[in-house]
Amino acid sequence: MVDDKLALDGITVLDLGQVYNGPYCSLLLAHLGAHVIKVEPIDGEHTRRRSPQPEPYPLILLNSNKDGLGLNLKSGQGRRLFLDLVATADIVVENFAEGVLERLGCGWDELQSANPRVILASGRGFNDHGGWGGVPAMDLAVQALGGVLAVTGFADGPPVKCGGAVADILGGTTLAVAALAALHERERTGRGQHVSVPMLDATLPTLTSPLAGYLETGGTLPERTGNRHGGLEVAPYNVYRCKDGWMTVFCAREQHWRALATTLGHPELVEADGFSSMRSRAQNMDEVDDLVTAWTTQRSRAEASAALLAQGVPCAPVRGIGELLDDAGLRDSGALPEVEHATRGRVRAFGSPFHVRGRKPRPLVPAPTLGQHSRDVLHSRLDLSGDDIDRLLTEGVIA
Amino acid sequence: MVDDKLALDGITVLDLGQVYNGPYCSLLLAHLGAHVIKVEPIDGEHTRRRSPQPEPYPLILLNSNKDGLGLNLKSGQGRRLFLDLVATADIVVENFAEGVLERLGCGWDELQSANPRVILASGRGFNDHGGWGGVPAMDLAVQALGGVLAVTGFADGPPVKCGGAVADILGGTTLAVAALAALHERERTGRGQHVSVPMLDATLPTLTSPLAGYLETGGTLPERTGNRHGGLEVAPYNVYRCKDGWMTVFCAREQHWRALATTLGHPELVEADGFSSMRSRAQNMDEVDDLVTAWTTQRSRAEASAALLAQGVPCAPVRGIGELLDDAGLRDSGALPEVEHATRGRVRAFGSPFHVRGRKPRPLVPAPTLGQHSRDVLHSRLDLSGDDIDRLLTEGVIA
Repeated sequence: MVDDKLALDGITVLDLGQVYNGPYCSLLLAHLGAHVIKVEPIDGEHTRRRSPQPEPYPLILLNSNKDGLGLNLKSGQGRRLFLDLVATADIVVENFAEGVLERLGCGWDELQSANPRVILASGRGFNDHGGWGGVPAMDLAVQALGGVLAVTGFADGPPVKCGGAVADILGGTTLAVAALAALHERERTGRGQHVSVPMLDATLPTLTSPLAGYLETGGTLPERTGNRHGGLEVAPYNVYRCKDGWMTVFCAREQHWRALATTLGHPELVEADGFSSMRSRAQNMDEVDDLVTAWTTQRSRAEASAALLAQGVPCAPVRGIGELLDDAGLRDSGALPEVEHATRGRVRAFGSPFHVRGRKPRPLVPAPTLGQHSRDVLHSRLDLSGDDIDRLLTEGVIA
Repeated sequence: MVDDKLALDGITVLDLGQVYNGPYCSLLLAHLGAHVIKVEPIDGEHTRRRSPQPEPYPLILLNSNKDGLGLNLKSGQGRRLFLDLVATADIVVENFAEGVLERLGCGWDELQSANPRVILASGRGFNDHGGWGGVPAMDLAVQALGGVLAVTGFADGPPVKCGGAVADILGGTTLAVAALAALHERERTGRGQHVSVPMLDATLPTLTSPLAGYLETGGTLPERTGNRHGGLEVAPYNVYRCKDGWMTVFCAREQHWRALATTLGHPELVEADGFSSMRSRAQNMDEVDDLVTAWTTQRSRAEASAALLAQGVPCAPVRGIGELLDDAGLRDSGALPEVEHATRGRVRAFGSPFHVRGRKPRPLVPAPTLGQHSRDVLHSRLDLSGDDIDRLLTEGVIA
């Protein structure tokens, strides 16, 4: 059975999101079938303004399946149009700095007056309690304040940022959870709510291993262990050099070690002193790593991975960005598909991470250009005439 | 107005999750008010079995507000009890390897027969399409195959894992989005669905900047840029040494640079050749970083951060795990509170990342010991007598 319906059919989202956090939240809702209207300032959202390219890739990647409306929220007319749209909407997503929405006259009180059923979902950086409310909530700052930097890198080197924008994306995903929970509650109460998610709170649970290690040992472990196990209790567990790059090998159980030692050509080590238990291997971590490296450096990632996986040893090649883009599986399964963009031609965009048994994913429509759907949206939702819309364009209220 | 109700009041979740991915998904649902029953094998879930401590910290951190039921799903009686519980539940969460649930006789067909309204939410590692279905889906493997390792670290060094378990936690969070969307759809259709989320798909959007940089330049940028901007287009943007550690400074706009140059005691650089535009600063990145370092190394993180934030320059101290645990804001705001555990005494656990206007978070009840609520659950939900339960304990069907 293939079903064309999607879970959020009939739900309308006004997306004031900018850069990564807010836009990713509403992208998830769009993948699930919501009608998402991306509301941008008339000179475009921040991602456009900071790029020489009017349709920059971050915007393309994160804004598929959204209609584009350019709207000047700083004008009285623009603000009234927005509140009229709120009256027709279910969810408003935003990740402005604290207080910006209120200064625009579109805070929670105004939204509730316009529509008591509307849900406001706010992406934030930090909770006020810590006194960090004033720190601009870029991903790098959240990684720094939230401990991700401290636990990434080598013990004898500086803290290292995670190259992925984990705070932005985890914050946005957790915000989508909050918005959908509020939607569920609305079935019972008939009323919306204002939910917010600080990126730091959303990111903290990624530190389960380092926090657990610290709490179990009283903080005697090194904070950063490079590519080794955070608690230095598992070996082999590392990133190993191959002929053509790097790969991970990770023996979680004794059966993995037995299979690995045999594959490496050292079956005698399975029972040897210093190698026969996880504890002893962890104590001889350098020797264990040298044994694995001696084998991996003679092989390509593909050869080594195939040989180890065939024996049930957990491992994986370290793949680069170009390899991800070349992966036909990712392209065809929908995670990173190709789409035809209005002005940039064939581009890549993030597909849906949701797999529903018996259902095809929503086809991907590329990110809108600035104001691409302004006419459609204002006509279909607020019944404005062509003349009204022309006047708003001329007056700079919409783009 | 403070409201004691929670969004998912009345929703029951059976949590077969293990380690981080599944348990974090259902922890989010528990924070939102769902009644979550953690169903563990009678010798405990994997996190207990791999630790010398029967109540290990990862389990405590990720399993608050859940009831604990020990149940042998490999026995016929255990399986029947589980399906009887499914008949009373709304959502089943699991992150076994592909096919395990089916082998236990609790696959989608059996769940649907037991309860056509139930939602099955499955955490996975990779999508089949890429041929990586056989790779054990540990966080490290997903970071390797999914590009997080390749973009983390310095250009002249090896790839580095993110010290946070970003794939596990992002996968689990995205799975919670999927489960709640299915719950929303059930209001309309009356039927459950089987949703699954591969961790790799959930993690890919963290690579927005590296993917965008690659796609815009055709892959000419270095894949890893240490703590510098991924596109090497922003300066200052780095982690700088202080007297007592490290801090980030990130000038996203010209106003930030003006404020920073003045604070550093070099107002002349605001207009100087090689420093007056983002483009020129990016070309002189080493000199710019030297100027910032000369200033930060003379100061503590707290002094330097306070001085820069007072001038509106985005920055943040790099905080270690011990500092996160000592942060009274995190402890009191609910993100990382203290709770009193049944056997371990005062411990820390992850609080709710959800902030709802006018509502207090759900009070945190510490993670259950193995089988702590077996009697309660089987009596209250399946009406089993004390004698029945004693017999099941004796026969090793429950713990």
